[in-house]
Amino acid sequence: MSSGERNQIDSQFSSAERDAVYKCIATRRDVRSQFLPDAIPDEILARILRAAHQAPSVGFMQPWDFLVIRDMAVKHKIKVAFEAANSQATEIFADDRQRLYRTLKLEGIVEAPLGICVTCDRNRTGPVGLGRTHQPDMDVYSSVCAIQNLWLAARAENIGVGWVSIIRTDDLRAALGIPAEIDVIAYLCLGYVSDFLAQPELEATGWLPRLPLDELVWFDQWRGRAGSEGLLRYLKQTGRHSESE
Amino acid sequence: MSSGERNQIDSQFSSAERDAVYKCIATRRDVRSQFLPDAIPDEILARILRAAHQAPSVGFMQPWDFLVIRDMAVKHKIKVAFEAANSQATEIFADDRQRLYRTLKLEGIVEAPLGICVTCDRNRTGPVGLGRTHQPDMDVYSSVCAIQNLWLAARAENIGVGWVSIIRTDDLRAALGIPAEIDVIAYLCLGYVSDFLAQPELEATGWLPRLPLDELVWFDQWRGRAGSEGLLRYLKQTGRHSESE
Repeated sequence: MSSGERNQIDSQFSSAERDAVYKCIATRRDVRSQFLPDAIPDEILARILRAAHQAPSVGFMQPWDFLVIRDMAVKHKIKVAFEAANSQATEIFADDRQRLYRTLKLEGIVEAPLGICVTCDRNRTGPVGLGRTHQPDMDVYSSVCAIQNLWLAARAENIGVGWVSIIRTDDLRAALGIPAEIDVIAYLCLGYVSDFLAQPELEATGWLPRLPLDELVWFDQWRGRAGSEGLLRYLKQTGRHSESE
Repeated sequence: MSSGERNQIDSQFSSAERDAVYKCIATRRDVRSQFLPDAIPDEILARILRAAHQAPSVGFMQPWDFLVIRDMAVKHKIKVAFEAANSQATEIFADDRQRLYRTLKLEGIVEAPLGICVTCDRNRTGPVGLGRTHQPDMDVYSSVCAIQNLWLAARAENIGVGWVSIIRTDDLRAALGIPAEIDVIAYLCLGYVSDFLAQPELEATGWLPRLPLDELVWFDQWRGRAGSEGLLRYLKQTGRHSESE
């Protein structure tokens, strides 16, 4: 429906459509090791970027830009920046944790056919904006919502995404020519994959366990439990099992 | 598949499943005015919270908690805090903008049957963590990803969500008894709706226009265009129309 005489949508979701959304959410993974070199067609990349652009944004400011990286020389600069940061990060963990950390593959910068850097232009609509008067970081949160939309859209296209956070944002800024007034929010790796892991890799390797959901939900007050028996029963039914199907 | 001998998922997405995900992303709205009083069944709320809990989190730290608010006395405290912040916010806009701002309904705190406050426990896994050594806000971004999962899951359940950001987080903290060491990320209103708007309300009312997506996508460098003709053609095909179907 184009924006016509009536600003409404009648589209209810069927149970099949609902289940597809839940499947997407449950089987999304942070991909580091399973990238294939196959190119992502422009038409599919356009759909994924459009999904990102449909994210909620505070005051409708749409503060994001998307830099698509295909140039191997640029990817190599980013890989070097990751390696510098990761060698510092490794030293923070001691003994067994450090040994486990060293075995983890934490990025696929060079193997993934595409990188996407997502930014936030905090002055896109001027110094103040609707919804940012009391929570100034809402614009950054909007860019993060765009990233999560992008991630889920990619999963629905059978494309994996990995978020590389072990990197100095100033190094990303330098490698990509991003001006000082633009915040760098994320560097993402995208590509088709050999397979999606059933569990998050950090859960499967024993880095950290999945937390039981019923221990993270409260009622009316922090740590409140009154009147919550019904919901807690549902949360417990599946909360202590693997999230994956 | 439970976490068995093989940490892999074979689940490809069909085009029907993919289209359901895109429908969810395209028709999600920030709801303020269309809430119905109908209660959300516990089983459905549990599914929505589980989807939030399946968000990506840096170093698998799962830093979020979810406070479900049903108590009208608590909602009234939050409404009072919104009104105090909103009357300050109104003064920031001048003349025609202020007149338009005053006509906007920006929250459904009391009308929505449920509130959900989403937090971030920045020390959940200790003072440092995998993936936060160089980008310390990754934990907050994880909570925001959980919010976007929650929002999309709710839409797939035909439930509307509105994010109330015109409120001091300290007022939310006081109303909900949240300790100082826990970051308050969002207060969300949830409920069934009379209808979902075809366009974002701030677009329909002329607060701000939808930006053309092809003006937000760059290649290999900030504002780079080389080699992007194919993708830009796809981005332009739908980029200047309403996002809604």
